[in-house]
Amino acid sequence: MPENKKGQELRIVETKYFNLPESEKFCLESGAILNGLKIAYETYGELNGEKNNAVLICHALSGDAHAAGYHEHEKKPGWWHEMIGPGKAFDTNKYFVICSNVLGGCKGTSGPNSINPVTERHYGLSFPIVSIKDMVDAQKRLIDFLGIKKLLSVCGGSMGGMQALQWAVSYPKNIVSCIPIATSYKHSAQQIAFDEVGRQAIMGDSAWQGGNYYQAKQYPSAGLAVARMIGHITYMSDKSMEDKFGRALKKKELGYEFTAEFEIEGYLRYRGDSFVKRFDANSYLYLTKAMDYFDLQKNEKLQAVFRDIKSRFLVIAFSSDWLYTSAKSKEIVKALKMNGVDVTYCEISSDYGHDAFLLKFPEETKLIKYFLSSTQKKLKF
Amino acid sequence: MPENKKGQELRIVETKYFNLPESEKFCLESGAILNGLKIAYETYGELNGEKNNAVLICHALSGDAHAAGYHEHEKKPGWWHEMIGPGKAFDTNKYFVICSNVLGGCKGTSGPNSINPVTERHYGLSFPIVSIKDMVDAQKRLIDFLGIKKLLSVCGGSMGGMQALQWAVSYPKNIVSCIPIATSYKHSAQQIAFDEVGRQAIMGDSAWQGGNYYQAKQYPSAGLAVARMIGHITYMSDKSMEDKFGRALKKKELGYEFTAEFEIEGYLRYRGDSFVKRFDANSYLYLTKAMDYFDLQKNEKLQAVFRDIKSRFLVIAFSSDWLYTSAKSKEIVKALKMNGVDVTYCEISSDYGHDAFLLKFPEETKLIKYFLSSTQKKLKF
Repeated sequence: MPENKKGQELRIVETKYFNLPESEKFCLESGAILNGLKIAYETYGELNGEKNNAVLICHALSGDAHAAGYHEHEKKPGWWHEMIGPGKAFDTNKYFVICSNVLGGCKGTSGPNSINPVTERHYGLSFPIVSIKDMVDAQKRLIDFLGIKKLLSVCGGSMGGMQALQWAVSYPKNIVSCIPIATSYKHSAQQIAFDEVGRQAIMGDSAWQGGNYYQAKQYPSAGLAVARMIGHITYMSDKSMEDKFGRALKKKELGYEFTAEFEIEGYLRYRGDSFVKRFDANSYLYLTKAMDYFDLQKNEKLQAVFRDIKSRFLVIAFSSDWLYTSAKSKEIVKALKMNGVDVTYCEISSDYGHDAFLLKFPEETKLIKYFLSSTQKKLKF
Repeated sequence: MPENKKGQELRIVETKYFNLPESEKFCLESGAILNGLKIAYETYGELNGEKNNAVLICHALSGDAHAAGYHEHEKKPGWWHEMIGPGKAFDTNKYFVICSNVLGGCKGTSGPNSINPVTERHYGLSFPIVSIKDMVDAQKRLIDFLGIKKLLSVCGGSMGGMQALQWAVSYPKNIVSCIPIATSYKHSAQQIAFDEVGRQAIMGDSAWQGGNYYQAKQYPSAGLAVARMIGHITYMSDKSMEDKFGRALKKKELGYEFTAEFEIEGYLRYRGDSFVKRFDANSYLYLTKAMDYFDLQKNEKLQAVFRDIKSRFLVIAFSSDWLYTSAKSKEIVKALKMNGVDVTYCEISSDYGHDAFLLKFPEETKLIKYFLSSTQKKLKF
């Protein structure tokens, strides 16, 4: 962060890259080995001498390493800028905040749009299928590289929340606290169903060409836009859609034609189109697949899965989230409590649906600020 | 029905066709005029001398005129066979049951896959946009042709329920009773959103070719399958999907590949593929559009819209239906009650979601059988 001094609002930030040394193998949950693992990441604030003030932020499906501040020549800040910075929820005066692009993503970390070092061509579908656990294992390598033995906290919403939970299970000794937001410990049949339809939309687009479109003139824009539109419906609540759009028309009257006549249609098309410009269709396949594979429980009781957890928890859910319901969060809380884990649960009242975790900043700030601060006080490394 | 005698289980039935005389104009709600209106319909049971035992069944999005009995050489009966026949809910020993394919459909009634009599080519997207009211107006012409002045009942689920409600509003003097099931009086933003994504999937399929695929070698199968899959998710409840499929795999282990690995994925692909074989992609556009346009209320109070209604009502909803919720049915019931209409409301407890109206036969049978029988007793034409 060349221009940011302590206490100053985050301004220009830069994405950095970490390459796993060639000597180190990166094994995936599938058994496959990934060559040349590269991780894109950003950091905000400063790591203290004891290296015990680091907080890892895990992003959701459409996010990336750019969580806060501004990239040079860009007008839009990072995706969680309202939450990260001096005096904010993740106070960069106190904490060293890290966010990395997930494995399988398309913003700098190894993924299907990366160049395969062996073939020197884009991976496409030859990129191995990755899991949430693989994403977390990659983050662990980054944290090791940064010289951090124990993270003060791991936090994330939605797919980011899955990573946070996976951290608590995979590396119980390496985190002091965990903040899973609007998430679940496993994907349900309905969640798999929505993802599968999105994937079918992409793979059914003739421009997708089996995933080998990187050198082609065509891009599976239509399919990816449809996938994104499906996602968007699940991110909003019925009520928020009704309140925001209802049956409002773009023009004065019905046109009796197949254009986007209702405001909601225009909104969805806009969201679909803008997503296509910034996201890789193959990454969408890989990341939804990783979420569908996510099942912390498997055949065990959740309580048993959480047996080694020593970290504190702040679990946040949103009342109108019908994708990752508060009921699922309560199951997590219950299983943690049964293990004697120090867990705080809060269901934030909101009409925004799943999207609330990217909108209810004051409520989240209040909860997270206090939680991190009290965690730091209790700190015994 | 060549082989069916009174009291005998419905066996071989035939689809019949009604052509509106060329001298009669068929005006649509949009102001457009449709030339050569043709209606495909089936009838079960016999019309009595007083012509006061006729019941009209209105089908849902994917239905057609073939509601009961078997077509010659076909093994599968009509879509509501369990409900129509001697001794069944719509007892063909007592009632003359009519079901016609909706306007804009693809099974014999005028729609985008019909031949435009003027150009002698398939209409495709030159077919005018139709509304639920237009569908009902077409059915009214058929009922007139059959010499029926007053229907004993109009019944339908989902889009069929919208038609039933529209009948009560458009032709209050021509129906004695109305049975709207699992439906709404207007499409919400979320319902429009799901439909729009389905339409985008179809129209984004390069094989769709602006709707002019009838003579082409390619058919927008991928797009239509995706649209159907989206629909299917909304027809099932989260719980029924979880109970039926959960996270069950088709093979023993995860394959780390983009095939249909989970049972739910296989099921959705199957439903998508089988729908493509029997349904016209353009019809899907037209029928979803008609539903999205459906808004009985417009800027009036629902009570005011229902002011001329004299018919009895049986309103049925299903507890786990999140597409057309019981809350919406209760609004209908309330507005009817405020007009002093004789209305019975029943919310059937079910985990099946919206699909329940095609599955909960014993419960529906009990309610409808009694309702029709008591309606017939009260009959004063």
